[in-house]
Formats: sequence, structure tokens, C-alpha cells
Amino acid sequence: MADGEPPRIAVVGVGLIGGSLGMAARERVRARVRGFDADPAALDAARERGAIDESAQDIADAVGGTDAVFVATPVGALAGTVRQVLAHAGERCVVSDVGSTKLPVTIAAADQRFVGGHPLAGAEGTGIAQARADMFEGATWYLTPAPETSGVLYERLHRLLVGLGARPVAIDAAAHDRLMACVSHLPHVLANVLVEQAVHAIGAQPSGARLGSPFAGGAPGPSFRDATRVAGANSDIWTDIYISNRAELCASIGRTIDALQAARKVIDAGDAAAVRAWNEAALAFKQRLARAEPSGEGEHELRVVVPNRPGVIAQIALALGRAGVNIADLALSPSADNSQGVVALWVQSDAQAREASRLVGELGFPVIST
Amino acid sequence: MADGEPPRIAVVGVGLIGGSLGMAARERVRARVRGFDADPAALDAARERGAIDESAQDIADAVGGTDAVFVATPVGALAGTVRQVLAHAGERCVVSDVGSTKLPVTIAAADQRFVGGHPLAGAEGTGIAQARADMFEGATWYLTPAPETSGVLYERLHRLLVGLGARPVAIDAAAHDRLMACVSHLPHVLANVLVEQAVHAIGAQPSGARLGSPFAGGAPGPSFRDATRVAGANSDIWTDIYISNRAELCASIGRTIDALQAARKVIDAGDAAAVRAWNEAALAFKQRLARAEPSGEGEHELRVVVPNRPGVIAQIALALGRAGVNIADLALSPSADNSQGVVALWVQSDAQAREASRLVGELGFPVIST
Repeated sequence: MADGEPPRIAVVGVGLIGGSLGMAARERVRARVRGFDADPAALDAARERGAIDESAQDIADAVGGTDAVFVATPVGALAGTVRQVLAHAGERCVVSDVGSTKLPVTIAAADQRFVGGHPLAGAEGTGIAQARADMFEGATWYLTPAPETSGVLYERLHRLLVGLGARPVAIDAAAHDRLMACVSHLPHVLANVLVEQAVHAIGAQPSGARLGSPFAGGAPGPSFRDATRVAGANSDIWTDIYISNRAELCASIGRTIDALQAARKVIDAGDAAAVRAWNEAALAFKQRLARAEPSGEGEHELRVVVPNRPGVIAQIALALGRAGVNIADLALSPSADNSQGVVALWVQSDAQAREASRLVGELGFPVIST
Repeated sequence: MADGEPPRIAVVGVGLIGGSLGMAARERVRARVRGFDADPAALDAARERGAIDESAQDIADAVGGTDAVFVATPVGALAGTVRQVLAHAGERCVVSDVGSTKLPVTIAAADQRFVGGHPLAGAEGTGIAQARADMFEGATWYLTPAPETSGVLYERLHRLLVGLGARPVAIDAAAHDRLMACVSHLPHVLANVLVEQAVHAIGAQPSGARLGSPFAGGAPGPSFRDATRVAGANSDIWTDIYISNRAELCASIGRTIDALQAARKVIDAGDAAAVRAWNEAALAFKQRLARAEPSGEGEHELRVVVPNRPGVIAQIALALGRAGVNIADLALSPSADNSQGVVALWVQSDAQAREASRLVGELGFPVIST
């Protein structure tokens, strides 16, 4: 992909996310988008909706000659599809995916061209009919580079996602799955458990086996309504997610059970000071989570000298991602002899620039300007 | 309270709910409202905001000569305050409260003038500053009459609440507390547990002890944000609620632990068909809960002959409440010799009118017209 030329992109799986990706790429970075889907009707609909320029016959046809490929199949099909894509994609093609779990596909790919991805975006419905070009505007887009990931290809992907309006954030694949187990998959499990509890609570009313007014016209408590909004989420999507991330999810359920047992003990004892302390601790946890980044004071550029070998860009991106430093954009300029290069990083504030300098310095890479 | 005359109401505790109640009563039913609060500043603010007409010196001063008293103190102070109010209220004064748990105060009151109440209404903040006259517009307002509750006084309270814009629904006090344990108190406990899990999940990221970008600018998953909105809710209010309803809440936590253990087992086994079946069951539970009442086809009036003794109106209201029949309004007309009377009930649809007729018939009361 030469600078300034529109990227050639393939999207494998043109549903809600794949279709939106195609639309965003066509509208925002003037990409030429080829699409493939196992369902011919979805592929036709994607072309009709302007999500792709061309329909491919198969995966080989879709990915040949492209600069970037996004696999947007259901999570259960990701690993196999990514391997097929890698078998047909060119040496300088970056391959990514958009699945909600990252470790299994990252392990299955094991290729310097692959970077796992997960945009935090979606809609109530599914399928190409709900797709839209602004789906990723301002959305966090997790990237999970592996040690073998090519820095050049990581940079290309990062810039492409910024072009789609997203905020790429690097994170270890395992840490991503642990985080998602807690902040997405566990809330879904709790929602499922809560609706079951409520049905039983109402069924258990003396002589009132029927479900009646408590839930007519909406849940009796907004906290219940909020906590159960995702109950029984799309089984085609969520069966795969639960199973794909079952190790982290089951560990998370286990910790939740422990925490509930502890909470029950505190509440059951009826000691107001202890109950208050438990509740105040939750408030403190919530406030820690809500603590926002320093507000942007304009972008700061950091220029770092790096050796030109795989994994360096990923290493920097991960270190900054872990520390909460958001890389708004990055650009890699190889030196003439290709032995090293300069990576320019743009971050959002003085404080983040200082932190980024410190972290990059700790990794052993000279910062030549901030 | 003679028909047509503005009711004289006392509100004890003029915070968010008490203040809103005063405003609604003054604006919507032209009530004369006396207020009392242990905090003189709150009482002054309530008068300034138009929530009360007059400030009382103490509880005796507040409730003397009134038709209805609402106790709107924190849950922990309800039982004692209600007993004080009953000691000073007249024989024909209906006394209610607005607490989130109903069994303890109902047991403590044990008086034919008392009907427990719980409006499903509130706001983000607390205190008189957030109070507003339309707080109860369309809101379900649970009433928990006891066997000794006076039918005449129950009817007065019901009509007054309809006048405030609310939808009164009768429910057993114990069933109310069991329901709230599940649909309000348990989601709060789960929210507290979830934020703790998330802090630990982020803290546990390899080499990344800092909280960073995953939560900057909002939670990474909408399901987490929704499920934790109420985490660390106001400790002044919730410490009392958790303790007051601890028997039902701890039972509910216990059932949740059992359900989570079962869910973990299904997910851990990795059997897609079983995980899908578990998720589909949750969807079915959610749909059962969401099943709305038949849409209103205009109000239907039911006239029922009832003996004039305590508990009859409560018995009818509870039977209809359990069956999901919403009493939009009711009116009691005693016979000349006061030995019996006719209660008119207004319900929302043909189907509800038929169901109400059947239920009232089963209780042994003749339905003279529908």
C-alpha cells in the first residue's frame, strides 16, 4: 500500500460489524473493499447497501492483492477462517479480526501478519441491515499484537482504524479476555441469572402463580431493568463467546460467587457499620473505574528510535496501553538501510507524553523529541 | 374528610419522596399539607419549595387533625416513627409510609389505620432539592394492607394516590419484600460485586497495576455500565434497606450463588448445545417478565357487595393484585345501616374485568354489575 493510494481491503463475513467496517472504509478512507460471506444473500445485501465494492467467490478470491483483511465471522469460526485467510493473503497484508475474545484466535494465527482486534461497537440488532458507516466513530478498538507481529503491519492497521474514526488501544490478548470476562461476559451471565430469579420470585408469591402487575409496563426497579437488558442475548453470537472465553469467564464467575458469599455474610449479620463499609468500598471501586483520563490539552508528538525488528511496535503499544496512555496516532519511518527507524507517537496531554517518554525509555528506546 | 373538601395531609420526613409527595398533593388534589422533619433546615427548604403549607413543631403537631399521614423517613427509622404517628393520629386518619421494605414496618404498626406503601419512584439525587410534583405520574405505588386494615381508610389512601397520578397495586408485605429483594436489592448487591471484580481484573493485568484506558471515557462494555450504574448507592439509604430486608435478600443471594454455580458448570463443560439451551431459557424468562398487560380498551366498572368489616377491601385488592389485575380506581359506598356496602372497582380491559369478577366471586362477594 503506497502512501496516498486508497487501501485495498477485504472483509470476510459481512454482517453487522463486517458490513459497517466496509462502509466506514469506503466512505472515510476511500478504500476499495472486497467482501466474502458464506451466505450469498448477505453478500448481495452488503453490495446493495454499499458496504463492499465487489463480491468474492471464496476466501482466496477475497484476500488476493489486498493490503488488509478483516475476519468478521462468528467467534466460533474465527480461528479456522483466519488460518484460511493467512494461507491466501500476501506477505505484506495485515490480517485482523473483530471477535469478542482474542486469545484462541491469536494462538491459532501465530503469524507476523496477524493482529487480533476487537472494536467495542455494536447495535441492538444483527446483520448487514443494521450496518452503518459511523459504527466505530470514537469507539475503543482493542488490538492484541503478539510478539511475532510485524511493526510495519501493526502501524498500518492502527492508522487504518484511526481513519475509520476508532481509537485503537493495544492490550495483551490474555489480558483482553480476562477484562472482557469481567466487564462484558460476566454481566451477561448475571443478567441471565437475574431474570431466572425474578420469574421464580414472582412464581413463589403465595397463591399467585401468575405473572402479573409487578412487571406489567416495565420492571419494578430500574436497577433490575438495567441489569437484565442483555439477558438471553443472541444465542448465535453468545454461545460462541461463552465457550471461547470459558476459562476466564468461569474464573470470573467463581470470584463473583466468593464475593457474593462475603456480601451475604456481611448483610446477614445486620451490622450497620459493616454493611455501610462494604457499600462504601463499592462506591470507591466505582469511582476508581470512572476516573477519567486527563482531559486533552492538544496532541503531543513523541519521536522514538527503534530497531527494525518484529514486535517492537507491539511492545511499545502494549506498554502504553497498559499504563492507560492512549495512542491517538502513530507513524513508523524506517531508516534508509532498514536496520532501524523512528516511530512517531501522538498522545493526548502533557501528562501522557511524560508518562509515555518514561515507559518508552524503560523499554530501552531513545526518545529523540517530545 | 368530607367528599369534595381538600384533604389535610401530613408528611413526616420532607426529603426527596416526602417533599415530592407534598408538592403533588398540593398541586394535584389541592391538599393542605403540614410537614415535619428532624432537620429544621430541610423543613424550611420544603416550605420554600412549596412542598408543604406549614411546618410542624413535632410529630404530634404534624398529624393532629389530618386525614392522611405519610411517613417518609429513612427505612431504619420507619417502624419507630410510624408508631409515634399512630399514637397521635386521629381514629379516622389513614397512616402510610414510603419505605422500600414493607414487612418490618407492617408488623411494627399492627393498626387498622395503617397501610404500608412503596412508590416506585425516585431520582439520581436525594433531598428536598430534587423533589418535584410529577414524581409519581404513572408510577406503580405498592400498598401492603394487613388483615386488620380498615377498608374505608384503604380506599381513601388508594384514591388519594390515584389523585397524585400514581397506580396503586396491592401486594402482601412479605411478597413485596421477596420481590424487591430480587428486582431491586439483589441488582444493587450484584453491582457492588461487579465493580470490585472489575478493579481486580484490571489490577491483575500483567505488569499493569494502573487503571488506564479500558475505563477511560466510559466502561468498555455497555452491559457492565448498565449493571453497575447503582454500585455504591447512597449508604444512608441502602444500609437500612439491606439490613431491613436481609432475610429475603440473603435468600436471594443464596439462590443467585446456586444459579451461578450451575451456569459455571454448563459453560465450563463447553457443550455448545447446553450453553445455547441455558441462554435461550434466560431469553424465555425475560420474555415472560416483559409480557405486558392486555392493552387498555377503556375502563370497566365492577360493582361488588361487601360486608362492612375490616380487611375486606384489602382482601379484594390483594387478590386482584396477585392475579395482575390493576385497579385503576376504587370507591366504597357504605349502606345506610353501615352493615354492608358496595365497592366499585375500575379495571382496564374486558379480560381484566372478567378475571376480577371471577376472583371476587371466589372470595364470596356478589358482583352486581360489570
